[in-house]
Amino acid sequence: MLRSRRGAAFSTRCCVLDAVLRFRLTGLCREPLIVQGGAMTITDFSTVGAYAAPAAKAPLERTTIPRRPLRDRDVLIEIKYAGICHSDIHQVTDGWGAGTYPMVPGHEIAGVVVATGPAVTRFAAGDRVGVGVMVEACGACDECRAGQEQYCPRHVGTYNDRDRYGELTYGGYSTHIVVDESFTLRIPENLPLAAAAPLLCAGVTLYSPLVHWKAGPGKKIAIVGLGGLGHMGVKIAHALGAEVTVLSQTLKKKDDGLRLGADHYYATADEETFDKLAGSFDLIISTVSAPLPLGRYLKLLRTEGTLVHLGAPEVPVELELFDLIEGRRSLAGSNIGGIAETQEMLDFCAEHGITSDVEVIRAEQINEAYARVLASDVRYRFVIDAATI
Amino acid sequence: MLRSRRGAAFSTRCCVLDAVLRFRLTGLCREPLIVQGGAMTITDFSTVGAYAAPAAKAPLERTTIPRRPLRDRDVLIEIKYAGICHSDIHQVTDGWGAGTYPMVPGHEIAGVVVATGPAVTRFAAGDRVGVGVMVEACGACDECRAGQEQYCPRHVGTYNDRDRYGELTYGGYSTHIVVDESFTLRIPENLPLAAAAPLLCAGVTLYSPLVHWKAGPGKKIAIVGLGGLGHMGVKIAHALGAEVTVLSQTLKKKDDGLRLGADHYYATADEETFDKLAGSFDLIISTVSAPLPLGRYLKLLRTEGTLVHLGAPEVPVELELFDLIEGRRSLAGSNIGGIAETQEMLDFCAEHGITSDVEVIRAEQINEAYARVLASDVRYRFVIDAATI
Repeated sequence: MLRSRRGAAFSTRCCVLDAVLRFRLTGLCREPLIVQGGAMTITDFSTVGAYAAPAAKAPLERTTIPRRPLRDRDVLIEIKYAGICHSDIHQVTDGWGAGTYPMVPGHEIAGVVVATGPAVTRFAAGDRVGVGVMVEACGACDECRAGQEQYCPRHVGTYNDRDRYGELTYGGYSTHIVVDESFTLRIPENLPLAAAAPLLCAGVTLYSPLVHWKAGPGKKIAIVGLGGLGHMGVKIAHALGAEVTVLSQTLKKKDDGLRLGADHYYATADEETFDKLAGSFDLIISTVSAPLPLGRYLKLLRTEGTLVHLGAPEVPVELELFDLIEGRRSLAGSNIGGIAETQEMLDFCAEHGITSDVEVIRAEQINEAYARVLASDVRYRFVIDAATI
Repeated sequence: MLRSRRGAAFSTRCCVLDAVLRFRLTGLCREPLIVQGGAMTITDFSTVGAYAAPAAKAPLERTTIPRRPLRDRDVLIEIKYAGICHSDIHQVTDGWGAGTYPMVPGHEIAGVVVATGPAVTRFAAGDRVGVGVMVEACGACDECRAGQEQYCPRHVGTYNDRDRYGELTYGGYSTHIVVDESFTLRIPENLPLAAAAPLLCAGVTLYSPLVHWKAGPGKKIAIVGLGGLGHMGVKIAHALGAEVTVLSQTLKKKDDGLRLGADHYYATADEETFDKLAGSFDLIISTVSAPLPLGRYLKLLRTEGTLVHLGAPEVPVELELFDLIEGRRSLAGSNIGGIAETQEMLDFCAEHGITSDVEVIRAEQINEAYARVLASDVRYRFVIDAATI
């Protein structure tokens, strides 16, 4: 069953559907649809275009992947843009292990609803929507009930995972995706889709800990690293009213940092930075994946301050517990945000005019973009134009 | 000037002072006091008895140490009992470095005021008092103003430290101590001094993080290690209304643990413990100084739970940051408590009838007691009877 939220029953094939919904389904509907009664069952999604890594560390190449027929509460989204997150590279290269291939990365997805399952109530064809890092959770555990689906032990990643039916999940480097409406976010009208896509991971990954650890007026916040995550952290922390300091390896991006909303900008390559800023911050959010010399950063915290790690190095880190005991400091981690919180973040960003600074690329530039991400040569997020897939 | 709070001016030597105040000053006043006018100046404290480590790793032996003449806000305390804290052994053996010798350990001090400086307002001769881990702080920094003197960068340890005049501080393994009244605690009448002494460090070291991280009804708390610190943690967490689990290497002390107030008791040597308790606790407080396999313990936390380390291993620990990121967990440290909080803890303990389970020893048993502490052969705190020094 494939219905729009408005209850229209489609009795003809995709070209008409396309016209009705005014959205392109080229990649999706190359094969005929089976029409049953007044409703429509799509039987063949095998030709949905995508970019996939066929094996660990292999370059991404164009391929086709299946998308499931819509279930009752599914929405079919035509992807317009998909951000490239550093974690895509970690996973494609199997840096975290347990990678499933072919792997279609992408969990910063912005697009438009083209069709909805019969029980969908919250979205209709034409809606501007996003999909982030998760597409499923159990819905019953403490975490789900608390709106923290990202910590549900059974949450399913948008890609490189298996859903409750045992099917591999494929991400946003693709022309279309089918997602349960409860994991679909509404992208406010004033946010351009390309620049909004990275909010679905980078945005909420910073928003959630900033709000959780109470960034706001009177609080001094440091953001370590001014990349895809860091630049969102600066914008959001500034909008929350905090005093924001960027700690970056060099001063190369200082002008950018101040433009994005930072009040101060220091180079961590400068030894004096650590002396000068000792005991300064209520909260430090590290967006870098490389192991940090944790002791030096912990000493930058005020009493009872917290250093939050968002990036996960592929190796264990070393820590002197004295650096926590002195000053009752905490070292914490944080992983994206819940679904309701992601919507809250999108609405907050709309209110404050916040999007990501993006460089839109064609799909065939993905591998080149990966190399540039690894070289920190992007300001500040690559976004794939899905029309080029 | 040496006056009692009640304004009596002493015009004769210590034997009379002794009689008036009904407290023994034998160790202190072997040398004559200089009497000036109606007041009294003590010039010679060189014969105060103490047990000291003459050098790193050396056994403790009896010696004499100086105590300063009373300043305006000082109280002179006759020490009745001094607890033996594991950190005494760390410091005597110079495990944390920068040890100063001769070292007189002891920061769990319970005694009675025998005299007060002229500006003392809060204590009078005869008062039952305690001294904990600190004897001085700057009084002006953010931490001091927040009542968190323990995190004041200029706080001075009760021993193995130098005060603002550059003088070495000597701890509680001694017959007397002179302390500013603002670092002197009142021990409620219903708490026996011997069993109250360990509250001054072990008690507040557990009370502070338990209260800070909101242990109470509905919260599941694990205490790792059932020693001097751990047994206080069980008693206090139970009194706060939390559900308390002890995680100990074996079940050897299980009966004790349940008697002290634990609801559950598990052996960490049993592999199944970690599977069974995964995701269980809001707060885990580790009282062990040895490095823990942090990942295994972090996985015992619920989402947004915190593992607090009180003991500091002498070597760095290894940590997978993923174990923090998944579940937004925190690894934290905590160091004793502030002065006001220590008084609050003593009052809480008085209200709930909480003291330490102690084994009172003679001073010449200190070295033997150290060996027994290292072998975890004490239930649960050695306390030195200062009358035997």
